[in-house]
Amino acid sequence: MAYNLAPLQNLIDQFERMQGIGHKTAQRMAFYVLGLSSEEANAFANAITDAHTKIKQCKICCDLADDELCPICKSESRDKSVICVVEDPRDVAAIERTHEYKGTYHVLHGAISPMDNIGPDQIRIKELIARLSDGVVEEVIMATNPTVEGEATAMYISRLLKPMGITVSRLAYGVPVGADLEYADEVTLSRAIEGRSLI
Amino acid sequence: MAYNLAPLQNLIDQFERMQGIGHKTAQRMAFYVLGLSSEEANAFANAITDAHTKIKQCKICCDLADDELCPICKSESRDKSVICVVEDPRDVAAIERTHEYKGTYHVLHGAISPMDNIGPDQIRIKELIARLSDGVVEEVIMATNPTVEGEATAMYISRLLKPMGITVSRLAYGVPVGADLEYADEVTLSRAIEGRSLI
Repeated sequence: MAYNLAPLQNLIDQFERMQGIGHKTAQRMAFYVLGLSSEEANAFANAITDAHTKIKQCKICCDLADDELCPICKSESRDKSVICVVEDPRDVAAIERTHEYKGTYHVLHGAISPMDNIGPDQIRIKELIARLSDGVVEEVIMATNPTVEGEATAMYISRLLKPMGITVSRLAYGVPVGADLEYADEVTLSRAIEGRSLI
Repeated sequence: MAYNLAPLQNLIDQFERMQGIGHKTAQRMAFYVLGLSSEEANAFANAITDAHTKIKQCKICCDLADDELCPICKSESRDKSVICVVEDPRDVAAIERTHEYKGTYHVLHGAISPMDNIGPDQIRIKELIARLSDGVVEEVIMATNPTVEGEATAMYISRLLKPMGITVSRLAYGVPVGADLEYADEVTLSRAIEGRSLI
């Protein structure tokens, strides 16, 4: 459609394939690449292949790792008796930013979603169960997203774990800190009232 | 600040360096790369180095080219007696999309802007003057942006060209097709009235 040289069009297409990147943004990004020095362009290309080849999954928690194990599973200072179960490696990064949690993680790489043909076998539930057999783990915190799929996944896993005598907890629901009550939805607000605490 | 593996953080940084890409978008893009197959990731990295090494500037019009000359300067069917002067290769693509213009282009790679220390010598004006010496060119259409810098550049070039006996024209100003008059700014509207035509 547009007049563009083949190598440029190819690069635009590559950027445009990313979710949330439209044609204009992809074009702007491609022109940014053309404006780089050769070293910078090579560094950019290497960053892509590097990240892709060096990053694997941790053998224990299925989080991203650049080694057999991720830095958290390797660490001596983390409490191995608590596992926080999340859907995505980005969720680990989000919880780590709080600097509050000292346990380990388990990344499911998705949530149960029959609509998308994702059942319990398509996400890393087996690997989670395997971690619980040695009796070290005392509590599993379900930190899946507060969506229909996340809830269903949390319920499914908690039913599997309860017979094993492991405490299963769920993140608290409530109004986000800094938000305006006026704009909170009804479900969140009613959960916040249910879960109220004494001050 | 955030907890991220070095190769992943490096890739996020690379994306974040692009204008208009924030941290969250850069992170999303990096995770998109991790989700690619090895072939796809290599193709992406190659697209970057390819575009960067293969694309040069056309010897005649300074537009992007993957050869000595760009496809437009090479083409026999383009009218070599008209040159359309634009600021940026993207402007060539925009005008080509109209399928109306059959002449050639000249890409200045910028506009005169004393505020940013860009004078006439920093953009491709010398190259434009050199193209006019053989007497083939009859008209130069100034299609620089309708901004202060674009106007100044158009005025500067037209003053250079007029003594050479070359017709210099400027893109018409007026209301954009499909726009709402209510939202047109005063300057555009008064230019549209000035430039009105009989129907």
